[in-house]
Amino acid sequence: MLIENVSLLCSGQLIKGRDIQIRDTRIARIGKDLRKERGEEVIDGQSKLAIPGLLNCHTHLAMTLLRGYADDMELIPWLHDKIWPLEAKLTKEDVYWGAKLGCLEQIRMGITCYNDMYYFTDETARATKEMGLRAFLSGVVFDMRPDLLVETEPFIKRWTGDELITPAVGPHAVYTCSEETLLKAKEIADKYDTLIHIHVSETREEVDGLNLSKGMSPVEYLDRLGMLNERLVAVHCVWLSLEDAYLLAERKANVVDCTVSNLKLSSGIAPLNYLLEAGVNVCLGTDGPSSNNNLNLFEEMKVTAIVQKNAYHTPAAFSAEQIWSIATEGAYKTFGLDMGLQEGALADLALIDLERPWLCPQSNMISHLVYSMTGGVDTTIVNGKVLMRNGIIPGEKEILEKAQERFERLTA
Amino acid sequence: MLIENVSLLCSGQLIKGRDIQIRDTRIARIGKDLRKERGEEVIDGQSKLAIPGLLNCHTHLAMTLLRGYADDMELIPWLHDKIWPLEAKLTKEDVYWGAKLGCLEQIRMGITCYNDMYYFTDETARATKEMGLRAFLSGVVFDMRPDLLVETEPFIKRWTGDELITPAVGPHAVYTCSEETLLKAKEIADKYDTLIHIHVSETREEVDGLNLSKGMSPVEYLDRLGMLNERLVAVHCVWLSLEDAYLLAERKANVVDCTVSNLKLSSGIAPLNYLLEAGVNVCLGTDGPSSNNNLNLFEEMKVTAIVQKNAYHTPAAFSAEQIWSIATEGAYKTFGLDMGLQEGALADLALIDLERPWLCPQSNMISHLVYSMTGGVDTTIVNGKVLMRNGIIPGEKEILEKAQERFERLTA
Repeated sequence: MLIENVSLLCSGQLIKGRDIQIRDTRIARIGKDLRKERGEEVIDGQSKLAIPGLLNCHTHLAMTLLRGYADDMELIPWLHDKIWPLEAKLTKEDVYWGAKLGCLEQIRMGITCYNDMYYFTDETARATKEMGLRAFLSGVVFDMRPDLLVETEPFIKRWTGDELITPAVGPHAVYTCSEETLLKAKEIADKYDTLIHIHVSETREEVDGLNLSKGMSPVEYLDRLGMLNERLVAVHCVWLSLEDAYLLAERKANVVDCTVSNLKLSSGIAPLNYLLEAGVNVCLGTDGPSSNNNLNLFEEMKVTAIVQKNAYHTPAAFSAEQIWSIATEGAYKTFGLDMGLQEGALADLALIDLERPWLCPQSNMISHLVYSMTGGVDTTIVNGKVLMRNGIIPGEKEILEKAQERFERLTA
Repeated sequence: MLIENVSLLCSGQLIKGRDIQIRDTRIARIGKDLRKERGEEVIDGQSKLAIPGLLNCHTHLAMTLLRGYADDMELIPWLHDKIWPLEAKLTKEDVYWGAKLGCLEQIRMGITCYNDMYYFTDETARATKEMGLRAFLSGVVFDMRPDLLVETEPFIKRWTGDELITPAVGPHAVYTCSEETLLKAKEIADKYDTLIHIHVSETREEVDGLNLSKGMSPVEYLDRLGMLNERLVAVHCVWLSLEDAYLLAERKANVVDCTVSNLKLSSGIAPLNYLLEAGVNVCLGTDGPSSNNNLNLFEEMKVTAIVQKNAYHTPAAFSAEQIWSIATEGAYKTFGLDMGLQEGALADLALIDLERPWLCPQSNMISHLVYSMTGGVDTTIVNGKVLMRNGIIPGEKEILEKAQERFERLTA
């Protein structure tokens, strides 16, 4: 495949008139006037900006079905009266169509890979494969449903070696999993060399609770269990001490910041400055669509930047370049993905229509991507395959209809 | 004009299959199966949601040209080294094309009316008329440029009675205008019965400064000058005392909250809870594109809601319905506009494509508009005239090219 005459960012500068050649699943060459092979598919890149595909580093994708179903409630009644009763009625079919809907939205947003934790993980995997996205998938594990832990190892075995789906282990959090459960999760992750995907220090209540019961913070506790390492994906990390941050850095654990969800649930603001100062690898996620309520990583970047500026009392903090770097390089590092617009990297990318008013004038494009982007992803390519072209995704209408049906059945 | 078979929100519920008949500049009828007049223009509303056009209650529109030119800087070097030197080079032509670009973006975002404060106001008015938007325009006034005050009255005279453009008076702020200037601005506003558009208590420095020099807050000071009334549009109001809030309420002054800009410049978070408790009329604005950096009122609604939830430590604060009401009813009240989707109201509206993944499932549509909307405004109508149809705005490409040229000249 040849993307002809496209614009790129090179050290933040807009470079026009380049070609990107894709061979199989990788970027083979980037240059000027590359020769088209006979019969090679050509994509016109005129007036389009190529960016590496975005990574949504934390979500519960099938919760698209619950989008807008319950907002603006206190956490406990929200979970007890709304989310859990509905989730108890969820079927495989619901998760399949919810994940399809989530993939659809992510493709529209230029997201090419996501990291998920939910139920019926095989269904999410199946939907994701069909949609063509790359994903890291963990079945959620917690004590109230012992069957979930039992399902973990078979799921990993089924999907290990898949080209697009990478299985992982998803203990929900330290307040929902016993020490025994956490250690079993760790054992499985060690055995299959997978990531561990876990919520950490999301709320003050979680941290206070663990301090009361164990006399330590969630980060210290995970460290005592031997779970802090470069295979840990610690989501939220809102209520961290400086010591927690240095411990995460020392153990090379990864942190996923979900600013929009943390604000919407009024959980607080993660201390990004000292996480970064300590040298922790940070990346960004939207969280699930029932606490965000969309899957827009551009919005996540903007809200993260401006909320952190205000939290640290200076507009000079957290530049667009820094947030862009967290969202891209930080995510590649967390998931060990060979990404970016360079030769040899995975052919996971998006083309953005430059002829949109919010990208005009074409001055600092990184600033525009972070602060001003409000739509215009035109083409999304994953693993060398075109998933959206000229804004069209085959089968979109059916997915919207089926998701609507599943929602109506669930809430009937 | 007949919009056929469209969806509407009725007390938050999605109602399908309605027709909206527009006669001249007003909504004539809303109902089922309205009879089409011979030769009447028809818009297919199938799978579209009609909403009242949004109002952007504070911006400096021509600053679209400066979008991305200088971000992530401390306020003083930002103004001294970047914004002011560039603004000193601004010509009428720049303002004209900058305003055109801003109108283009607002039309794409479903904004049908905006409230502006800037230089070369006649150019902004001309651009806005050509683009077909409704606007309240004030030439900015401050002491360092005495000519600006001189231009105010002639500008008002030229535009009074215009169908789309309503002139107003725009003293910049209490720290840039002397008492004499403020009183002259008030005199002109009283004489022509116009709004006064002014920045109030945006930063702590502004409030501290006035307390030091005058022994009172900016709100108290404006009251002492007789400027607090229902014709006052007080923008920002971040650093308010509870007394300030009650005084604003008592005098029926209007407040424009600009959360995104306040965060990006790290100015703080407006105390919306006590403003609303006190009974102040509040509406929303994006501020200028060099401190936001877009003109997306959906994003403004979402960020306002989630930031306020977090500030008041409960997700139950500031529901989607409340924020939607502020953004719509609050704005109509501030500007005295007869708006909303009802018979007799101004025909200022937008149609949103319902077949977008972020609006699925169709559950709580107000929640989707506030929390999940990431594009899909399909049609924008102002004063009974279609400005965008099926996502197409005539002349868009020329505006993008001219704006790019003007930016390059300015920064050459």
